[in-house]
Amino acid sequence: MIQRPRGTRDFFPDELEERRGVEETLRRAVSQWGYREVATPEFEHLELFTIRSGEGIIGEMYAFQDKGGRDLSLRPELTAPVLRMYVNEAKVLNRPVRWYYFGDCFRYERPQKGRYRQFWQFGIELIGADTAQADAEVIAVGSDLLTSAGVTFELRVGHLSMMKSLIADLEPDTQKKVMACLDKRDYGALQTVLPEGDLAERLTALIESRNLDDAFAITGSIPEEARIRETFALLDAHEVPYTQYFGIARGLDYYTGCVFEAFAENLGAENQIMGGGAYRLAHLFGGEDTPSCGFAIGFDRVMVSRGDQGVPRPLTVALVVTPEGRLAGIGAAAAFRRAGVRTLADLTGKSLSAQLSYAAKHADYAVVIGGREAESGMVTLRDLGSGDQETVSVEEAVLRVVSGGSC
Amino acid sequence: MIQRPRGTRDFFPDELEERRGVEETLRRAVSQWGYREVATPEFEHLELFTIRSGEGIIGEMYAFQDKGGRDLSLRPELTAPVLRMYVNEAKVLNRPVRWYYFGDCFRYERPQKGRYRQFWQFGIELIGADTAQADAEVIAVGSDLLTSAGVTFELRVGHLSMMKSLIADLEPDTQKKVMACLDKRDYGALQTVLPEGDLAERLTALIESRNLDDAFAITGSIPEEARIRETFALLDAHEVPYTQYFGIARGLDYYTGCVFEAFAENLGAENQIMGGGAYRLAHLFGGEDTPSCGFAIGFDRVMVSRGDQGVPRPLTVALVVTPEGRLAGIGAAAAFRRAGVRTLADLTGKSLSAQLSYAAKHADYAVVIGGREAESGMVTLRDLGSGDQETVSVEEAVLRVVSGGSC
Repeated sequence: MIQRPRGTRDFFPDELEERRGVEETLRRAVSQWGYREVATPEFEHLELFTIRSGEGIIGEMYAFQDKGGRDLSLRPELTAPVLRMYVNEAKVLNRPVRWYYFGDCFRYERPQKGRYRQFWQFGIELIGADTAQADAEVIAVGSDLLTSAGVTFELRVGHLSMMKSLIADLEPDTQKKVMACLDKRDYGALQTVLPEGDLAERLTALIESRNLDDAFAITGSIPEEARIRETFALLDAHEVPYTQYFGIARGLDYYTGCVFEAFAENLGAENQIMGGGAYRLAHLFGGEDTPSCGFAIGFDRVMVSRGDQGVPRPLTVALVVTPEGRLAGIGAAAAFRRAGVRTLADLTGKSLSAQLSYAAKHADYAVVIGGREAESGMVTLRDLGSGDQETVSVEEAVLRVVSGGSC
Repeated sequence: MIQRPRGTRDFFPDELEERRGVEETLRRAVSQWGYREVATPEFEHLELFTIRSGEGIIGEMYAFQDKGGRDLSLRPELTAPVLRMYVNEAKVLNRPVRWYYFGDCFRYERPQKGRYRQFWQFGIELIGADTAQADAEVIAVGSDLLTSAGVTFELRVGHLSMMKSLIADLEPDTQKKVMACLDKRDYGALQTVLPEGDLAERLTALIESRNLDDAFAITGSIPEEARIRETFALLDAHEVPYTQYFGIARGLDYYTGCVFEAFAENLGAENQIMGGGAYRLAHLFGGEDTPSCGFAIGFDRVMVSRGDQGVPRPLTVALVVTPEGRLAGIGAAAAFRRAGVRTLADLTGKSLSAQLSYAAKHADYAVVIGGREAESGMVTLRDLGSGDQETVSVEEAVLRVVSGGSC
């Protein structure tokens, strides 16, 4: 038996309808902030991702050559493709650009619980605005989306300048190691990387600081102070529930300022559900240097975090027909569908009782058409909940079903 | 500047929203027939497609090896993956299974007008029913979907047994050539393939026959006659507008009976917009031999055929704020969004007149909050169509915008 490739999933209707429902909720919420959807190809030139993330990423990518010898890769994430798309058409776009995306991404790694080789991300990119309002809006949208999706989470907001100002006097190499430890939240390793002295203490105090006055008392004033204070004040105005957390480093070098991460409360170790921040990428792809801010939400983790809530079956009618009722049944089914009612036809030609027991499992009403009904142009409408039934015209049957009346 | 890969597309919001609208229409229509969505991985084991379509298809596929040395391919179509998924879980599924899919597929070929390397298909598979009702339902669903999508098309319906009965006495090799010519609708080449005698004439007469009595007068009675007559009678009952066309061969060997194709009236040479039929695939993938019937609609061609109809902008409010109005603006924007109104915040900090001219382009109402409004807790609501404006409370402004009233 042929199986699906390792680390991928098939989605059956129950699960997929639940995912579509959450997707729809996210779309509706993000649209209210004025973000509009864009889509990029499933694969890109390999260099798009190595420019952004370094050659190291190739080992985790579905990279391949096409028949023309081009180095391509299935996309491992969507920020680089969306920025590439922006750069290609930047001349005709009004800034700021508010875009969102929902798409699948790919990574080649050992499959494990909750981590798949094909996974979905929902994200936004706000391109061409460099203000505290822009940073705060992006964070507020992220918080709004996760809340809309029914997730319980902790949102941490920081700013790279704070930590960078503390470690500015270290060797560049040591700075990198510090940021890498922070990114992994490996505070044990951090202590071994830092030089002797009080830096470790100050660094820990900064990470643990939960208000701006405490934080600036540790770093001293820095050029970004006003911007950071304004961003946090705007977040309060947005009524975003967040924790000040200057220990956020983000893995990637291209983040420039404000950074944030959200963690779901019920996902164990793999609990980061959103990550984002202010960054600059456009100039790396051949465009003008452009301030941007965005985030990506791990859609699959959102689904796990919400838990299986189920989607109610829409109002459903099942046709139950004898051979003599078959042609009349087609007309009756069409009348129900015109009225917006999901209608299952019988395709088996089995006995009435076999059809009725199928109907009882999959529908709310049965519409029975035997020889007697076919001759009179009527149908027998049976309420499969109460068992009540009555013989009426098709129009009357549709009316009763749509109005939710009994038979 | 990094470009997208050759033969692929980026979708900007105007185009993508139009596509999403048609997708939504198709989903709603197909759901009313009781079909539910499934999804399979973007890539599969290569053999899934060579079993179905032969080794020849590899030249047109995005085939690659993953890092584990597995031969994979981006999916060139979705029937084989959906049947593979069915086979994997057949034991727990109630038949008949009514499934639909909407997804992207990939083919490696020279890009040309209207043909892309990544393209989208919307289709259904009805698995486990082998009746005239099943065939007729699938065709009726296809006709309903294309009509819902706003496409004008000709639907041709045939049955492979008719042509096969005429050529049954030819060498198997010649039979294959005949079917290949029919599939390409290359009636010139057909004449050179056929042997001397009256077969060519009978074959042409069968293709040109437009009612069943004429057709059976040519073929004589065949075992499938009753089934074919019933299918066509049911199509009439479904009020499906179709043309009887026994010249349909379909390219692939696994079709077994009823076949159909639809052609849009305004697409030139590349005008086939839907194709399908009854087939058997499950046993090739390691499952039980299972009758199936389905079709795929070329979604990109549907979009071209409909033409650019545009999607109206949803009701939109733009905030226009001075620095003193900024915090109050965030609260006002939240109130509009809670009421379901798309609300654009200013992120630039530019002058009121610059903000107002942005608002005039992108919104229906401006909500102005300067120092005076911020102090009084009021907002100035300006109707950007009429230019009328009035200073009112936030609640009042929301009410007026939602009710579509003027200022």
